[in-house]
Amino acid sequence: MSVRIEHDTMGPVEVPADKYWGAQTQRSINNFKIGGEKNRMPIEIIRAFAILKKAAAFTNAELGVLEKNKAVVIGEVCDEILDGRLDDQFPLVVWQTGSGTQSNMNTNEVIAYRAHVLLGGSLEDSKKKIHPNDDVNKSQSSNDTYPTAMHIAAYKMVMETTLPGIEKLRNTLQAKAESFRKVVKIGRTHFMDATPLTLGQEFSGYVAQLDHGLKAIKNTLSHLSELALGGTAVGTGLNTPQGYAELVAEKIADIAEQPFITAPNKFEALAAHDAMVETHGALKQVAVSLMKIANDIRMLSSGPRSGIGEILIPENEPGSSIMPGKVNPTQVEALTMVAAQVMGNDVAISIGGATGHFELNVFKPLIAANFLQSARLIGDACVSFNDNCAVGIKPNDAMIKRHLENSLMLVTALNPHIGYENAAAIAKKAHKEGTSLREAAISLGLLTSEQFDEWVKPEDMIGSLK
Amino acid sequence: MSVRIEHDTMGPVEVPADKYWGAQTQRSINNFKIGGEKNRMPIEIIRAFAILKKAAAFTNAELGVLEKNKAVVIGEVCDEILDGRLDDQFPLVVWQTGSGTQSNMNTNEVIAYRAHVLLGGSLEDSKKKIHPNDDVNKSQSSNDTYPTAMHIAAYKMVMETTLPGIEKLRNTLQAKAESFRKVVKIGRTHFMDATPLTLGQEFSGYVAQLDHGLKAIKNTLSHLSELALGGTAVGTGLNTPQGYAELVAEKIADIAEQPFITAPNKFEALAAHDAMVETHGALKQVAVSLMKIANDIRMLSSGPRSGIGEILIPENEPGSSIMPGKVNPTQVEALTMVAAQVMGNDVAISIGGATGHFELNVFKPLIAANFLQSARLIGDACVSFNDNCAVGIKPNDAMIKRHLENSLMLVTALNPHIGYENAAAIAKKAHKEGTSLREAAISLGLLTSEQFDEWVKPEDMIGSLK
Amino acid sequence: MSVRIEHDTMGPVEVPADKYWGAQTQRSINNFKIGGEKNRMPIEIIRAFAILKKAAAFTNAELGVLEKNKAVVIGEVCDEILDGRLDDQFPLVVWQTGSGTQSNMNTNEVIAYRAHVLLGGSLEDSKKKIHPNDDVNKSQSSNDTYPTAMHIAAYKMVMETTLPGIEKLRNTLQAKAESFRKVVKIGRTHFMDATPLTLGQEFSGYVAQLDHGLKAIKNTLSHLSELALGGTAVGTGLNTPQGYAELVAEKIADIAEQPFITAPNKFEALAAHDAMVETHGALKQVAVSLMKIANDIRMLSSGPRSGIGEILIPENEPGSSIMPGKVNPTQVEALTMVAAQVMGNDVAISIGGATGHFELNVFKPLIAANFLQSARLIGDACVSFNDNCAVGIKPNDAMIKRHLENSLMLVTALNPHIGYENAAAIAKKAHKEGTSLREAAISLGLLTSEQFDEWVKPEDMIGSLK
Amino acid sequence: MSVRIEHDTMGPVEVPADKYWGAQTQRSINNFKIGGEKNRMPIEIIRAFAILKKAAAFTNAELGVLEKNKAVVIGEVCDEILDGRLDDQFPLVVWQTGSGTQSNMNTNEVIAYRAHVLLGGSLEDSKKKIHPNDDVNKSQSSNDTYPTAMHIAAYKMVMETTLPGIEKLRNTLQAKAESFRKVVKIGRTHFMDATPLTLGQEFSGYVAQLDHGLKAIKNTLSHLSELALGGTAVGTGLNTPQGYAELVAEKIADIAEQPFITAPNKFEALAAHDAMVETHGALKQVAVSLMKIANDIRMLSSGPRSGIGEILIPENEPGSSIMPGKVNPTQVEALTMVAAQVMGNDVAISIGGATGHFELNVFKPLIAANFLQSARLIGDACVSFNDNCAVGIKPNDAMIKRHLENSLMLVTALNPHIGYENAAAIAKKAHKEGTSLREAAISLGLLTSEQFDEWVKPEDMIGSLK
Repeated sequence: MSVRIEHDTMGPVEVPADKYWGAQTQRSINNFKIGGEKNRMPIEIIRAFAILKKAAAFTNAELGVLEKNKAVVIGEVCDEILDGRLDDQFPLVVWQTGSGTQSNMNTNEVIAYRAHVLLGGSLEDSKKKIHPNDDVNKSQSSNDTYPTAMHIAAYKMVMETTLPGIEKLRNTLQAKAESFRKVVKIGRTHFMDATPLTLGQEFSGYVAQLDHGLKAIKNTLSHLSELALGGTAVGTGLNTPQGYAELVAEKIADIAEQPFITAPNKFEALAAHDAMVETHGALKQVAVSLMKIANDIRMLSSGPRSGIGEILIPENEPGSSIMPGKVNPTQVEALTMVAAQVMGNDVAISIGGATGHFELNVFKPLIAANFLQSARLIGDACVSFNDNCAVGIKPNDAMIKRHLENSLMLVTALNPHIGYENAAAIAKKAHKEGTSLREAAISLGLLTSEQFDEWVKPEDMIGSLK
Repeated sequence: MSVRIEHDTMGPVEVPADKYWGAQTQRSINNFKIGGEKNRMPIEIIRAFAILKKAAAFTNAELGVLEKNKAVVIGEVCDEILDGRLDDQFPLVVWQTGSGTQSNMNTNEVIAYRAHVLLGGSLEDSKKKIHPNDDVNKSQSSNDTYPTAMHIAAYKMVMETTLPGIEKLRNTLQAKAESFRKVVKIGRTHFMDATPLTLGQEFSGYVAQLDHGLKAIKNTLSHLSELALGGTAVGTGLNTPQGYAELVAEKIADIAEQPFITAPNKFEALAAHDAMVETHGALKQVAVSLMKIANDIRMLSSGPRSGIGEILIPENEPGSSIMPGKVNPTQVEALTMVAAQVMGNDVAISIGGATGHFELNVFKPLIAANFLQSARLIGDACVSFNDNCAVGIKPNDAMIKRHLENSLMLVTALNPHIGYENAAAIAKKAHKEGTSLREAAISLGLLTSEQFDEWVKPEDMIGSLK
Repeated sequence: MSVRIEHDTMGPVEVPADKYWGAQTQRSINNFKIGGEKNRMPIEIIRAFAILKKAAAFTNAELGVLEKNKAVVIGEVCDEILDGRLDDQFPLVVWQTGSGTQSNMNTNEVIAYRAHVLLGGSLEDSKKKIHPNDDVNKSQSSNDTYPTAMHIAAYKMVMETTLPGIEKLRNTLQAKAESFRKVVKIGRTHFMDATPLTLGQEFSGYVAQLDHGLKAIKNTLSHLSELALGGTAVGTGLNTPQGYAELVAEKIADIAEQPFITAPNKFEALAAHDAMVETHGALKQVAVSLMKIANDIRMLSSGPRSGIGEILIPENEPGSSIMPGKVNPTQVEALTMVAAQVMGNDVAISIGGATGHFELNVFKPLIAANFLQSARLIGDACVSFNDNCAVGIKPNDAMIKRHLENSLMLVTALNPHIGYENAAAIAKKAHKEGTSLREAAISLGLLTSEQFDEWVKPEDMIGSLK
Repeated sequence: MSVRIEHDTMGPVEVPADKYWGAQTQRSINNFKIGGEKNRMPIEIIRAFAILKKAAAFTNAELGVLEKNKAVVIGEVCDEILDGRLDDQFPLVVWQTGSGTQSNMNTNEVIAYRAHVLLGGSLEDSKKKIHPNDDVNKSQSSNDTYPTAMHIAAYKMVMETTLPGIEKLRNTLQAKAESFRKVVKIGRTHFMDATPLTLGQEFSGYVAQLDHGLKAIKNTLSHLSELALGGTAVGTGLNTPQGYAELVAEKIADIAEQPFITAPNKFEALAAHDAMVETHGALKQVAVSLMKIANDIRMLSSGPRSGIGEILIPENEPGSSIMPGKVNPTQVEALTMVAAQVMGNDVAISIGGATGHFELNVFKPLIAANFLQSARLIGDACVSFNDNCAVGIKPNDAMIKRHLENSLMLVTALNPHIGYENAAAIAKKAHKEGTSLREAAISLGLLTSEQFDEWVKPEDMIGSLK
């Protein structure tokens, strides 16, 4: 590998000749060989850094502490990063310094050196036209940039992936609830047969869960919209020009197209990450909901012969080649695995959030990585589950009918007509002999087949359908 | 032990002669010997049952399905329960049926049999004037009463204990933040010395955390205010009179003096407990905040000689008899243990919430018990920490001053006056020789003692104090 | 309440006149009003303290640092505590100082003052014949006594409650596995019908899980058998006589009848509680196993009509009065709630264990309380589940047969006889038309009813039964 | 992208022309767009599949159910996979079917089609010389191959990365403990000054923690060494030749060079993953230990001026350019983030492990991915922390001495010489006036400076050094 030499305050470092990064990035590569490629700092954090670096550069220029032309070229490189053209310039892993300093410096170095090249310089030049610290990092500290990038990335992921994914699934389930509103079926409590309801009612519960989950996530977003930038090293804003924090937040909001504001209290914004804990708590709630919903669908579609089998789900992959109808609920399985992951990530984030000290929480990359994984997985998995499973769910009318007619719970409908004692006698006989209520009732001579049909109407037991 | 015989549909059961409970309660005692007395169903759940049973009785009377005089006597017993006069009548443990049916029946039996006695009957009477199921449980099912009791108890605990406790601590910390607003001290990032801030700013971060936590809890309360009652067995409201759900929720709101409403979707309210998951998620966020705050206070008060020692906390118990100043941060320790407990409870609740099936979640008592423990512990521990620690926190001015003056970070203030190179030389000399910046600066002949005093003013490095 | 005055180094305190405790216990009552009675220090910890205080007293006497007669009377009080006669003398809650100092002092005070009374003194005497610190706590520190009590209590609970409970259930399941060894039934993978196995094989998997769980718990016990006593304040053993640590561990082992040894490294034993984390990790593994097993039993017994219904479980409480056969799996529900609790407790314990600092972990009472709850709940719940459910599990032969005969998976048995293509055609026809394989096969003219019986033998598809 | 058409039982699928995979892999790509590249099935699982596929092929050949030449070419492709030459052929993500079927089929397809090419065929051939199911998957099912691959990969990761990493760190800490055995320093309990110990004793506690952790991991390995292979679809071993399970386990053990055995109970091995839960529980215990150790080191090295500062850690990256001595404990931060991650992963794995149903646990890829991440992160982070931090830890003798001499706890050494009362008077004066014990003692006229030196010897307060 061809190398060049870069310097930082600790001395020279060999850097791959064709990479834009500098000494500090390279030191992190050398010193943190933990987890390998899969554990790279999420690209969403890098993109968020690009947004904030661009915003900071133009804010600095506007406030007179950075030359305008420097801001312009910094902005150009940030746009390249946002376009994904420099993705291979960010090799660092999550498991680095807990302030994310090294990824901040990676960004500073790449922006500075790429800008230097855009301005006609060469990577081999020992002095670059744009300085990673003095220019790109001006009016900033890792301590306020990383949490800012974290909030930008998290907020965008929630808005662009998580919420739309949940909403898509919610809307499909709502359409199903409406479509199934007259499909009367047996209810189950304690996993045991209970009084009937409609399949639509059952699905309406899922919709209500997701509606509450969506609301819960949205409730947390104002906290997440608060940006630490302007706090610099310890929250006091040392070395920032007057008005900087507010202005840079505005610019970030413009670029990111999300309603970011400057955090009213910068000390909290550096030292704690309760906003991440808070929003992830809501993601975890949705994971809990999805686990319940998906488990129900897994069980409702079980069979084809020896399960519950009240719904049919799409067949997306070959099941058993010789056994038709063995449609494994693979999308359910992916979704429930995602739910378990999010529940685990919540613990990691909570521990990270609880373990900050004094002016700085140093579990930032852990918190960011887990949050972004959860937020993306929920969004992606909802879409996958929606497109490949939920939209194709159909009632298995024959099975629903069979279960409903077999049910002994329907006997309660006979109470007003033949009395509780007689009704109970019918149920007991049917249970003992394994027959239907109808058969038992007629065999006991308590009513006729016609009366049975007239009196035992599951559709009268399901409340008013709104 | 003297016994009497009570019956249920499975036959006779021996019950302690002097207890109001009946056969089903006794069966639960016999069949669920798990965990012992400490694991009893929380008394708050029993009280909440009393509220809902009273509300249900009067609603039933108003809607014409229960005789008024029965409602009146049921209400009287409920008031006795609310007054704590029947606490020893509720012996069941959390680890029973997951629907809480047995505690619902315990309540029904105690109310019915106590009412029978109030109406002049004797516990020995084989037939009671008030029937546990037909009267007390009318228009209800365990499946909708238990989650209703759970929400009532949870909501009240949050409003009456959790929020006031957090607010009390928050207000004390806010007063401290104001009181300490001019106490300039060394900052710490990565647990290492950093640029200064005020002790007031440090505490303002804690206030911001708790403010966000309070808001987060409140955001969840509208979900928690939804009551399942009226859903009966599977959510359809089978066997409830017209208008029942809305009316009973109103009455509960009146009795409980909290803004309860009937759940718009009863299927969700029985089959999932996302509202409990949601509010507990916010409690967990507060636990995360408290862990951070308490750890800071533990470390800031460490010493008396060989720690950080920048604050003094009250001495509440004898420390070392021979070592003055060893004031163990015992309240911090209680508070952080509580925080860890709440973080664990959050996992238990999430697993319980995720594992409902079809029309009924059967982890209800687990969810209720963990929630109520967390909500009470946070409230109690905040008050205890507040009263016995936070209110007495004082800056240790001598130590704060020593750390601040010793700090090498202050050298940055010299940059504009003597240049970066000279400033760095001073810091390096001071670090190497273990002297103060002042000594190093003068010894290098770079400035006078008066200049040092004039230029190195930590109070100019802390941003504008609002 | 009648009071007397007791003193400690901080001055006088009012104490209930009829209680044996002294000033330090009372200060803890006054200062830690957190959680109420349910949150009292587990009585098992108090009993364990009695064991160690007795052992320490006799060790001190033997090593010549305590008068023999003092040791004798201390031992007498310890025996009273072990007999449960002084349970109301230990009012402190878990949420106190994290070293458990206050419960250590509570024990010291109660032992000293009760001993004083046994020696003819009065509680009103300002000077007691036995001193809480100088006599009862001699050669000890809270820092080594509390972790010692924690290990004693935990070890005994595991040996006396947890392991026997699991073993009891394991043995019942093993007997069931043997009893069901020829009950051929449909298998299920992905919750979908699969190739057959026997019910005995299914249960043998549960037995294997519990066998592994038992082994896992036992693997951790040697760590848990290490006692901190002898480390005193920071692990160095300051103020202990020569040979003390080994001798006191021997005596504790004698009294507790468990193989305790002195911890080879006292610094670890005070500063970390990895032994508790380790054993609880194994308890959590068993919780995971129990959740799986219990869920299976819940689902296998579902129905009676519209579920899987392949096993019958005992009916312990009235289900629906009108619906025979609705036997709610209430013991399953208690067991799965316990499993969820243990999984949550594991997180609380892990956080507590991870958050020790320097020479002392100060999450001791949290760790102890959660551990003891888990260990007891698993033991109790296994016994309850065993006695009230597992022992009565029976195969529902009719349902098992119906599912097996309905199954389309059996078609694979026809491959060798009529070829894969024909076999697949039979399955497809049966699936499409909702008929049995036999009907479809005969209807297609591919074989006779007799051939079907001869060739399709599920019992040939289940491997060799050992 | 150039494509070719592959078929499975559901019909044709477009596949990238240059890839070896077939229809089923492609369907998974199309249907599971969840999480992106970072969420790919761990390559260790793919390699483990190669080991088992090779072993299965040769076992099948030896038992006469596969032609020898087919086994040979299958083995060749497996070797290519093991050499990393086909890594880009495994595009599937973790979030697929919970049995891992799709990754099993991905492996089958790649092996079959690559073998076909090795045998002179072309990917465009509609019929391949080696069949993914009939040849490569012979005597196997996804249901037994995936858990087998999971155990192989997990076991190897633990043996090759986790244990060596922990041991390396353990050995360094042991060397430090020995090197620091005479460095007497102040102890700290409750984060407050306490009686002295040596820095070596403090480090010996860390060594004891890791020794126990290593033992705990090793205790779990016999369970993890059990392989499911031979259980096929539901654990009965349907469609496997006599002796297959034992022989294939032997061959896997040979290839993998680890002591694998066939699982005594295949039903447990498919339906539960308690072995993974068990070993990960031990990994979590180590994470708890590492959190404690790393936090201590973070705090011991804090400063340089206003912290505890008793040890010096290597400076690996530029800290503050102007502030010498601000050596951020970046390796500590990476290690503690890893610990938090492992604690979160433990919850995800436990939930996955608890949620299996009947004959198959369908959270396999979740469990595998979390386990492998934890096992690798612990190993890598221990090495990184070791090489870049632990090996360079040095006592900061000046600070240790200052803290020790300042300590008021040393006054206890004067008790035998001047009495408790006088000793306490000295300590109180020193505390009140902020002076040293020596100064206070002399000023009170209670002893001479020489006597102080003679009597106050911290090195006599630290117990016997073994």
